[in-house]
Amino acid sequence: MAHLLSASCPLNVSSCSKNGPNSLKQSLASLPTSLTSRTSIQPFKNLSLNRKNAQRLFSIRATTLQQPGTKAGSGSDESSGQQSRPTRVMVIGGDGYCGWATSLHLSKKGYEVAIVDNLVRRHFDDQLGLDSLTPIVSIHDRIRRWRSLTEKDINLYIGDVCDFEFLSEAFTSFKPDAVVHFGEQRSAPFSMIDRSRAVYTQQNNVLGTLNVLFAIKEYAEDCHLVKLGTMGEYGTPNIDIEEGYITITHNGRTDTLPYPKQASSFYHLSKVHDSNNIAFTCKAWGIRATDLNQGVVYGVRTAETEMHDELYNRFDYDGVFGTALNRFCVQAAVGHPLTVYGKGGQTRGYLDIRDTVQCVELAIANPAKRGEFRVFNQFTEQFSVNQLASLVTKAGEKLGIEVKTISVPNPRVEAEEHYYNAKHTKLIELGLEPHLLSDSLLDSLLNVAVQFKDRVDTKQIMPSVSWRKIGAKPKTVSA
Amino acid sequence: MAHLLSASCPLNVSSCSKNGPNSLKQSLASLPTSLTSRTSIQPFKNLSLNRKNAQRLFSIRATTLQQPGTKAGSGSDESSGQQSRPTRVMVIGGDGYCGWATSLHLSKKGYEVAIVDNLVRRHFDDQLGLDSLTPIVSIHDRIRRWRSLTEKDINLYIGDVCDFEFLSEAFTSFKPDAVVHFGEQRSAPFSMIDRSRAVYTQQNNVLGTLNVLFAIKEYAEDCHLVKLGTMGEYGTPNIDIEEGYITITHNGRTDTLPYPKQASSFYHLSKVHDSNNIAFTCKAWGIRATDLNQGVVYGVRTAETEMHDELYNRFDYDGVFGTALNRFCVQAAVGHPLTVYGKGGQTRGYLDIRDTVQCVELAIANPAKRGEFRVFNQFTEQFSVNQLASLVTKAGEKLGIEVKTISVPNPRVEAEEHYYNAKHTKLIELGLEPHLLSDSLLDSLLNVAVQFKDRVDTKQIMPSVSWRKIGAKPKTVSA
Repeated sequence: MAHLLSASCPLNVSSCSKNGPNSLKQSLASLPTSLTSRTSIQPFKNLSLNRKNAQRLFSIRATTLQQPGTKAGSGSDESSGQQSRPTRVMVIGGDGYCGWATSLHLSKKGYEVAIVDNLVRRHFDDQLGLDSLTPIVSIHDRIRRWRSLTEKDINLYIGDVCDFEFLSEAFTSFKPDAVVHFGEQRSAPFSMIDRSRAVYTQQNNVLGTLNVLFAIKEYAEDCHLVKLGTMGEYGTPNIDIEEGYITITHNGRTDTLPYPKQASSFYHLSKVHDSNNIAFTCKAWGIRATDLNQGVVYGVRTAETEMHDELYNRFDYDGVFGTALNRFCVQAAVGHPLTVYGKGGQTRGYLDIRDTVQCVELAIANPAKRGEFRVFNQFTEQFSVNQLASLVTKAGEKLGIEVKTISVPNPRVEAEEHYYNAKHTKLIELGLEPHLLSDSLLDSLLNVAVQFKDRVDTKQIMPSVSWRKIGAKPKTVSA
Repeated sequence: MAHLLSASCPLNVSSCSKNGPNSLKQSLASLPTSLTSRTSIQPFKNLSLNRKNAQRLFSIRATTLQQPGTKAGSGSDESSGQQSRPTRVMVIGGDGYCGWATSLHLSKKGYEVAIVDNLVRRHFDDQLGLDSLTPIVSIHDRIRRWRSLTEKDINLYIGDVCDFEFLSEAFTSFKPDAVVHFGEQRSAPFSMIDRSRAVYTQQNNVLGTLNVLFAIKEYAEDCHLVKLGTMGEYGTPNIDIEEGYITITHNGRTDTLPYPKQASSFYHLSKVHDSNNIAFTCKAWGIRATDLNQGVVYGVRTAETEMHDELYNRFDYDGVFGTALNRFCVQAAVGHPLTVYGKGGQTRGYLDIRDTVQCVELAIANPAKRGEFRVFNQFTEQFSVNQLASLVTKAGEKLGIEVKTISVPNPRVEAEEHYYNAKHTKLIELGLEPHLLSDSLLDSLLNVAVQFKDRVDTKQIMPSVSWRKIGAKPKTVSA
């Protein structure tokens, strides 16, 4: 029987621990209307349970049905010597862009998944007047739709990992074997809006991760932490970027040390702080951790999210949360010039979101050892911003769209022409089979942008946040 | 006229802006009894002003009297082209061990000093049942005594730098030319007591420093930040430790990058986070900053603090706040064996507190350029713990004290035998004249410990905090 969660976590969607799929369906059939989707979904109609009963039902849990044909290492735990059971993965931030795609992918692969999310990403959109290009439904409806399509259940814990009482309840009731931690404020521009957002970003990210580390130590010390970092932690050094560590010979002596970091926003810095904190706990407490220094993610479709409209992933194109390539595709679709910041020589690592979910699964299936702080650079190809603009222009031509490019003053403080060569072999060695941008650009990006172009708010496209002009005073948003 | 401070800052001790020392003395003579010292000080006796009047008096400010013979670069500002005026230095954490000694030293040298402190260090002692070996009076009495002895005023802002409203008031009313930031939770063991202290340490230190950076950007963009870091940020790499940066040649290319950090407590990590945040703001905003990576400070006497009992500095010997050498001297004085953690080969940089105040003044007098993030390793000599124990044993012999040494299980996670060679030439090049431990051990350390040995609480000497056993649950302290 699960613990009831604290006030900050009013709803724990899961299925029945001692009953099979039949009683699960009965539970679903008795959901209250107040908890159902804004859109009409047949199985959830005409329900009349009160919230108290609903909460009880939501708190009952079940063994997830294992997918037929699940392979060892992809959801089943055969190394324990006990009867095989699915590996239990807690996805913190599972309602977000990478988190939602990852949660579905892992659930499909036979992992028992729990999403932990405070839904603050949706709140940011409300506050800043932004919206996903793709229409997305509530997390509750997403999970119900997934269950109705696959008979797979995803546990849901709504709450904030900065609230340790909530996090403790989530850990002790779900008992994760692995935690994938996407639950951070993930936008560099957001962290540079004003002082309060800068402080919020570091407070939320750094202290939330500290809580996750303490929860692992206290409740699940063998649990593998898979933490989303960013390639932006490294900055743009004039030497090759290695995966987490570099061997330095200096004055006749040699040591392998953490690769020097040069982050360039309060957001990127928060990830550096996290990496340093996690490395320490691996050494001091024997935590097992994998730091995924992820490049810029593009695309929206994954095999699971395209199963149904209600499983759509979010797609951000605005100046705050939109990543460079996604934003370019939306600009091309609506006839807006591609906005290259400054000279456009900024080079970064990129990857398709289908590779994000693959990489996370590979990390979980091949866990770090106790005490190991393992760092993978998670991207598949390097591009400069000018190269991206050129690729989008050519793809536009194939769709009969004329694409123009303009240079806008760079709102960031960064090198616009620089050396960049980052290693990224460790995930390939574990079996990553990359999707390449040249293949994805039309089907997973530009066509999606064209499909939803009527939803584009062109006011959100231009950069609105300046690295240099950030002030101490709160920045408000007008209508 | 000074701004009245916010509720978190009820008291702003300073003198009269338009009047001279005579009216200052009148102000002092009319202080309310509720604000005077616990000990009896003649000038403050028999006072009857109510708090409202007292607050008004405390909020009036004056030009600090300049010490006769003040040299250029040590308090006077001759580079501005305007009439010479004292450099205004805000000392955040000015009621603490290093902060108090530094505040008096700078005031003596002709700087206009403001202490900003929330007095939480005293609160920690109350909560943990600890006390300074030396008796210390309130910050208000300290400042009054300093004023009565030297006719120099020190401005006082009681409040928390994590409260940006308070910090803004302090900045806009004091208008600092330099900020010395000691205002952090500074004990590694404290940060390893339990989850809440770990989180508090990073929250207080990292977010407080972010606020200081924003205050400089918003209110005093030319202000020089002198930030206290720690040599512990570097850890114990197997190569020489440089001052902040290292030039790396890798795969045929070369760059000078931030020296890799390997901190080993949540406290030390908070300083690494600070360094990274500050470096970014130097680059993005043109902040001028000096990061003083300080070694372990020993000693208690400085020229200013020994002028009067009421100016005494604090001296911590307990297992939480006591630094190794100070603790050893107290152990020797009370006949307690010196407690070496583990093998005792742990080697660190050390310095006399008289050199701390010298170094800070040198940094202020030779400010970093706009946009420069300058790192000085602030220590004078390296010792292993075993070497310290041996030195204290020999010094004890001269005083007729038999000193024994025992090894206790190491409560920390750290290498007990390792290579250690850290550079520390930049402050010497600026003119630092070190006090060497061999000269200070008897007069500034062991004799002080013997003088106050009746105040020693031997229950506080042994280590009480374990790096490995730290738990998520709050650790309480019994009587």
